[in-house]
Amino acid sequence: MAATKKTTANAKGLEDLFLDGLKDIYYAEKKILKALLKMAKGADQEEVTAAFEKHRAETEGQVERLDEIFDILGVPARGKTCPAIDGILEEGSEILEEYKGSPSLDAGLVGAAQAVEHYEIARYGTLIAWATLLGKTDIVDLLNATLEEEKATDVALTGLGETGVNDRAAEQKAA
Amino acid sequence: MAATKKTTANAKGLEDLFLDGLKDIYYAEKKILKALLKMAKGADQEEVTAAFEKHRAETEGQVERLDEIFDILGVPARGKTCPAIDGILEEGSEILEEYKGSPSLDAGLVGAAQAVEHYEIARYGTLIAWATLLGKTDIVDLLNATLEEEKATDVALTGLGETGVNDRAAEQKAA
Repeated sequence: MAATKKTTANAKGLEDLFLDGLKDIYYAEKKILKALLKMAKGADQEEVTAAFEKHRAETEGQVERLDEIFDILGVPARGKTCPAIDGILEEGSEILEEYKGSPSLDAGLVGAAQAVEHYEIARYGTLIAWATLLGKTDIVDLLNATLEEEKATDVALTGLGETGVNDRAAEQKAA
Repeated sequence: MAATKKTTANAKGLEDLFLDGLKDIYYAEKKILKALLKMAKGADQEEVTAAFEKHRAETEGQVERLDEIFDILGVPARGKTCPAIDGILEEGSEILEEYKGSPSLDAGLVGAAQAVEHYEIARYGTLIAWATLLGKTDIVDLLNATLEEEKATDVALTGLGETGVNDRAAEQKAA
């Protein structure tokens, strides 16, 4: 076993960490639902709006999966304030305000959406590692389904940024 | 060209978006430097402390690369408050407080560090896409060097989580 620096005296364990993490992402997903509505409405190009709307529909399914997980655990589905997602989404709101009417608005929004995706990818990845150690295989399957969706969305957003949205921003700059 | 819903009237363009993004990550990297110091000091197991210290040394180099980029652009190296990283690091501080003395402390800290990594991966990825479109190839190279380091750190943290830290948390739970 690895050397440790301190004796342990806190009864909180991996189960608590896992439950805290679930509450964190539950809060985050619900905030993301609202933010994607604003971003879809605010985006300039139809393909960007469509991408955000697709992601919003997927997020609804992800919230349902979390409800199912809370149900399996026998605890009420409840969120816990997640300052990380609040901060990430605040930056998306700043883009919407500061770049409204700019040809680069959508490039900024796609960037903001990818920051959201990566937060989710990090959190679901961690939750899967913990659920695996806790032997909760049914929950691992549900979390994996969401993680795969998040990764696919990130790839789609990268494609959108590379082929359409950012080109438009660059074209306008060159004009 | 894709259909657009609005006329554009905001003079801000991709150059502004790129510079805003650089200031955002500059602020973030400096905050991360301080946070990693606290996390390395607070971690229970030596291998986790070592991982955070290694990452801290790398982050110093990443700040230097950003200084170099500001220099190439001929603008002063200045950060811009980044609510996203403030929120992400706040969650790391919560873990340090709430799980102090718990066998799961390090698992929580590794999870928090991976949320930081993914924020950086998202931001550097976006900055590289924009710098490429703006034709700033020397800057793209510098940003790519950092992105590769961030990705390697994320992989190392995943390994740490899977092999040592989380196992310890699970063992303690089973004991």
